Amino acid sequence: MNISNGLEDVYIKNTSITFIDGEKGILRYRGYDIHELAENCTFEEVAYLMIFGELPSRNELVSFSGTVQKSFSLPSYVLNVIDALPQDADILSVFETAFAAFSSEERNFSWSREATLAKAPEILGHAAAVLAAAYRHSQGLKYNPPPASDSYAKSFLSASFGAVPERKIVDAMNRSLVLYADHEVPASTTAALVASSTLSDMYSSIAAAVAALRGPLHGGAAEAAYRQFTEIGRAENTDEWFSKNIIQGKKRLMGFGHRVYRTYDPRMAIFKSMAASLAKDEEERNLLRIAERLERLGVEKFSPKGIYPNTDFYSGIAFRCIGFPVTMFTSLFALSRTAGWIAHMSEYVENGGRIMRPRAVYIGHGPRELPGEKAR
Amino acid sequence: MNISNGLEDVYIKNTSITFIDGEKGILRYRGYDIHELAENCTFEEVAYLMIFGELPSRNELVSFSGTVQKSFSLPSYVLNVIDALPQDADILSVFETAFAAFSSEERNFSWSREATLAKAPEILGHAAAVLAAAYRHSQGLKYNPPPASDSYAKSFLSASFGAVPERKIVDAMNRSLVLYADHEVPASTTAALVASSTLSDMYSSIAAAVAALRGPLHGGAAEAAYRQFTEIGRAENTDEWFSKNIIQGKKRLMGFGHRVYRTYDPRMAIFKSMAASLAKDEEERNLLRIAERLERLGVEKFSPKGIYPNTDFYSGIAFRCIGFPVTMFTSLFALSRTAGWIAHMSEYVENGGRIMRPRAVYIGHGPRELPGEKAR
Repeated sequence: MNISNGLEDVYIKNTSITFIDGEKGILRYRGYDIHELAENCTFEEVAYLMIFGELPSRNELVSFSGTVQKSFSLPSYVLNVIDALPQDADILSVFETAFAAFSSEERNFSWSREATLAKAPEILGHAAAVLAAAYRHSQGLKYNPPPASDSYAKSFLSASFGAVPERKIVDAMNRSLVLYADHEVPASTTAALVASSTLSDMYSSIAAAVAALRGPLHGGAAEAAYRQFTEIGRAENTDEWFSKNIIQGKKRLMGFGHRVYRTYDPRMAIFKSMAASLAKDEEERNLLRIAERLERLGVEKFSPKGIYPNTDFYSGIAFRCIGFPVTMFTSLFALSRTAGWIAHMSEYVENGGRIMRPRAVYIGHGPRELPGEKAR
Repeated sequence: MNISNGLEDVYIKNTSITFIDGEKGILRYRGYDIHELAENCTFEEVAYLMIFGELPSRNELVSFSGTVQKSFSLPSYVLNVIDALPQDADILSVFETAFAAFSSEERNFSWSREATLAKAPEILGHAAAVLAAAYRHSQGLKYNPPPASDSYAKSFLSASFGAVPERKIVDAMNRSLVLYADHEVPASTTAALVASSTLSDMYSSIAAAVAALRGPLHGGAAEAAYRQFTEIGRAENTDEWFSKNIIQGKKRLMGFGHRVYRTYDPRMAIFKSMAASLAKDEEERNLLRIAERLERLGVEKFSPKGIYPNTDFYSGIAFRCIGFPVTMFTSLFALSRTAGWIAHMSEYVENGGRIMRPRAVYIGHGPRELPGEKAR
């Protein structure tokens, strides 16, 4: 019996959501190229597209966005749970904790197209509200629902910063939400699928996804890539740092390499140009110069092995230019990916996907007797 | 490309923890038969055995149990999180929420034998304390750490009920903890493995397992089986209920059937005799008579297809005799299984298990253009 270590080459489901060509560097949601979507659509439209299969009509969008906006109000027990956590709590754990808390009132959830239609926009609104509340909690600030707005990105930023942000920041936030919204079935989505395959509720299953995303091998990559840049400090140190740490030290170059892509991750270039157009001061431009130099060195060294920069390489700089600290990066990924998790779970469960029950190969002790003193 | 729907026949890991022979109805932990362990060992010994490979020496047990007992004290932020949840919150969600909350302080967790040795007894103590606190919260009562005792089962019951229980109740609780402690890689353990494969922390990964366990197709079976008995109401109604609901109504007989066993689940007989010896009043004896009659009818009908009663068929009656309401059943399963989750995660990660990254087969739309009004 062959062990599928890491579930490599195991096909866990059929999907009509996300298409990836890892050789050519192509990513499409429901047939639309990621560049087109990032350029032309709001996150709400893309989330709707991913969950329901087609872009919303005008009326569908109004109804969907209405529920999203309403759900920026949080029930008081969820606010109290967030308040109860230490101020220095890991922000992604706060997100996970709040989602587990929501599940406490989901005893009667049952999976169907209608349930998803009602629940998905509520969850998306709650996700943004929870993350804004978690961010403010980390700053010692209270959460207030933002003024209703015409955009998810705008409402989320208003809720986080307590002020309506400028247009180009809203656009950047929207684009980053679209870019991270799905990527087929990585570990976090797999965790969501495993949980939902037992007919657990959506909130709880998203908490399971977040638990997987928390790991430094998964969602932590944007933060890890960014911390390299701050460690390098100045662009002129990059070559020496690379030689010492990556070539001689054999450390892993963070933000490089992907289990699926063997070429440039198509999202990377979009984050790179976002970062370039947003960098507003010498410090941000300096980080960008470091990243660009490191990209060049990394591609020279690793591209012959099919290892290229991935989406997380520049996203941290973009998040920082939007105004978030490094401790928020993985949570921003989670916020966006919530759309993909919902889409994949509902696709799996509504198409009769079975409960996930793999096997293990037993290689341990044969039958043995308890030692004398234990056999009463 | 073949879809492994439900991950059936996928071997996710090697294991030396639990051996199951589904044809013969054999279950062993680390080579010891489940009957022997349930009869002769404490849960602490079994948990240690499962996580570390061998039964503890006297000194190892003293040190392990010491940390377990100390961990019946909960940090105030966890108590506050539990308090913040609605009194009618699903008890398993409270458990999940508390574990997600613990993860907020686990930013620096890293996986190793030493880390597991330190963390496992802490988690086991915290798990029992959290569940006792969640139970008391559901009753409108405050949690207090129990007096230190010589047994996990005793401390857990004291913490839950606020009084030291009689010996035979403690023994039954201990036995049920041992019986549910592991069962290879069902959905909940798979969720824990997926989460921990990203090097997420143990608390968070256990929260992911709980999210999967919550589903009615998984951990809810003991509750569902028990609710059948209360619905039937009286033993003499059993035949009619069976004929109407199961034969004609084609409803699923809960507590019957298992993805692995094609014969009697070896744990079932132990729960059955526990329930028989604990039943202390007419109501409990009545439930037992219903269950026994239903078992006979179910075996007659379904055993030709390899469908037999499983461990959840009688466990609910045992839990009720111990003193817990039906809303606690799945959480009692979770408490016990925490040992198995820890054992499987540490076996996987410490042996260099890779991040779980299956694939999906794309069957959706080919490339398409955005509709005219969207292309800005």
